[in-house]
Amino acid sequence: MTGWQHIAGQDDLNLDLIHRAEKLIAPYIMNTPVLRSPELDNSSGARLFFKCENLQHTGAFKFRGAIHALLNLTAAQRKAGVYTVSSGNHGAALAAAGRILNISVQVAVPTNAPSVKKQNIAQNGADIIEIEPGMAAREAFVAANQQQSERIFIPPYNHPLIMAGQGTAALELVKAVPELQVLMSPLGGGGLLSGTAMVGHSQNMAVFGVEPELANDAWLSLQAGSIQSARPPISICDGLLTNLGDHTFPIIQNYVDAVLLVSEDEVIVAMQQLWQALKVIVEPSAATVFAAVCKYPEHFSGKAVGLILSGGNLDVACLPWPVTRLEKAK
Amino acid sequence: MTGWQHIAGQDDLNLDLIHRAEKLIAPYIMNTPVLRSPELDNSSGARLFFKCENLQHTGAFKFRGAIHALLNLTAAQRKAGVYTVSSGNHGAALAAAGRILNISVQVAVPTNAPSVKKQNIAQNGADIIEIEPGMAAREAFVAANQQQSERIFIPPYNHPLIMAGQGTAALELVKAVPELQVLMSPLGGGGLLSGTAMVGHSQNMAVFGVEPELANDAWLSLQAGSIQSARPPISICDGLLTNLGDHTFPIIQNYVDAVLLVSEDEVIVAMQQLWQALKVIVEPSAATVFAAVCKYPEHFSGKAVGLILSGGNLDVACLPWPVTRLEKAK
Repeated sequence: MTGWQHIAGQDDLNLDLIHRAEKLIAPYIMNTPVLRSPELDNSSGARLFFKCENLQHTGAFKFRGAIHALLNLTAAQRKAGVYTVSSGNHGAALAAAGRILNISVQVAVPTNAPSVKKQNIAQNGADIIEIEPGMAAREAFVAANQQQSERIFIPPYNHPLIMAGQGTAALELVKAVPELQVLMSPLGGGGLLSGTAMVGHSQNMAVFGVEPELANDAWLSLQAGSIQSARPPISICDGLLTNLGDHTFPIIQNYVDAVLLVSEDEVIVAMQQLWQALKVIVEPSAATVFAAVCKYPEHFSGKAVGLILSGGNLDVACLPWPVTRLEKAK
Repeated sequence: MTGWQHIAGQDDLNLDLIHRAEKLIAPYIMNTPVLRSPELDNSSGARLFFKCENLQHTGAFKFRGAIHALLNLTAAQRKAGVYTVSSGNHGAALAAAGRILNISVQVAVPTNAPSVKKQNIAQNGADIIEIEPGMAAREAFVAANQQQSERIFIPPYNHPLIMAGQGTAALELVKAVPELQVLMSPLGGGGLLSGTAMVGHSQNMAVFGVEPELANDAWLSLQAGSIQSARPPISICDGLLTNLGDHTFPIIQNYVDAVLLVSEDEVIVAMQQLWQALKVIVEPSAATVFAAVCKYPEHFSGKAVGLILSGGNLDVACLPWPVTRLEKAK
């Protein structure tokens, strides 16, 4: 038998697991910088501290969870190799982590994944298998692999070891900025937010997750008290289209103050403002948090707010705002 | 009498002055991160360490020199206020430094300066005076101010205190990455490169400056043995259009191994590659160094190379490569 359930560390996510993850992955990850902007502070009315996981290896926080999962494999599991299904950042992160630890990685990629994200996976040395988009094809692929392969499935978010790895970003942030009163992260499958919430809650900070109105499955899930799907989940935020999982949902229920919704237009405006002011490239998913700060001042005004900028993987020749051509000299 | 010549620290630039600058400005500046990219290492054949001065306060290394100059003013000079002439990054840096130290700042800006850079100056609280482009209007403005105002002139690069401040970026870089064999910086007026060269030379590293072919005044100056102008200096690299000064030229003559020239097209390609791989926004001037690494492998192949990314101030809605529209979900 193979499968993610056979990775060590099956307990629920807890703060100690995040602290242990931090020590374990420290030699491999970048303790990413925390940036500030007087201009964005002024325009938002809050004191904003941006944790730049877009500058993390492979351009997203996903590398933290991926390397943490692989570091917890047994020698036999390492030898068998791993696989996952990912439309982008998790796949690239797992590929890079596998290369560093000399573990074979296979990534099933939906045919509609952004080409930059596919390239990112391939450049990091993983084998790519194309599958149809959607949960059905994904589950069929995983089921087939579990029967036919010795490889270990490394899920993108719904596992305590992955969630603990993602939580180390928040841990670094609160250590760097002890005066924080609020923590925020984007919310897709809930891996990043659950780790962030566990850390924020332990320090008596308010914690918010942000998701697109058009992929509001987590918001619906909290309303309903059970995991819901947004159908169809569509958004420019291609990293936030997944549903919650049975590991991430209860953490978010218990430790997140609220899920805030932002529109596509609000994400685009926020993304351009972040590029212009911070001089870093964030993908749409990452811009949701700043969009929410601007939209819901009642939660943030006058406060010290930590925002996790989750990733920066997109094609810089394909942008969601109108761009004129800067002419070169002749 | 007023004028830059009355700032303390008239000695020539030396390594000790840079070390003292580092201590003095440390509480005010950001020790900017050093980024790496396996992808850019692969494509260049060198090991590249990017010092991200685009993430420095006000988006450029210029803040280092500006705050260093102001910290060396007497109490009377601080009270009188300061002024400068700048098409962008130095003006914004001086404005921000003045605001922090409660010193009044006036910036004369050529009418052809990029509007984003003008905004950056105004946002940081300086008084802006528009003047005609070109050295003549600039010199007339300074001469008039010296007669009519008690304000101190803070030059953009041609002063040991400014050069020492800029050299602290290289000092931080070589401390963070002791194995460096080569240091590189863009070359405009020579403030950044002279500080960088002094630091690199002290560690037996090769040092290269990079300038655009269309603004090759420093390259011409080294050939001629005296300061030359490129006429007219035109380039997409709006930060590199100035001539060398009598303080920067001799340092560059003595401590820089070579000035490398890059074309406008090479700058644009390098800039897009840096955005895509590093997830940071660099302006054209800053991309020159990576363009040179790709163009002149004989100097860099197989070596550990430190590149100073000088700044990131540009309008992200006006880019030098073709951009298609990423459509939002509806």
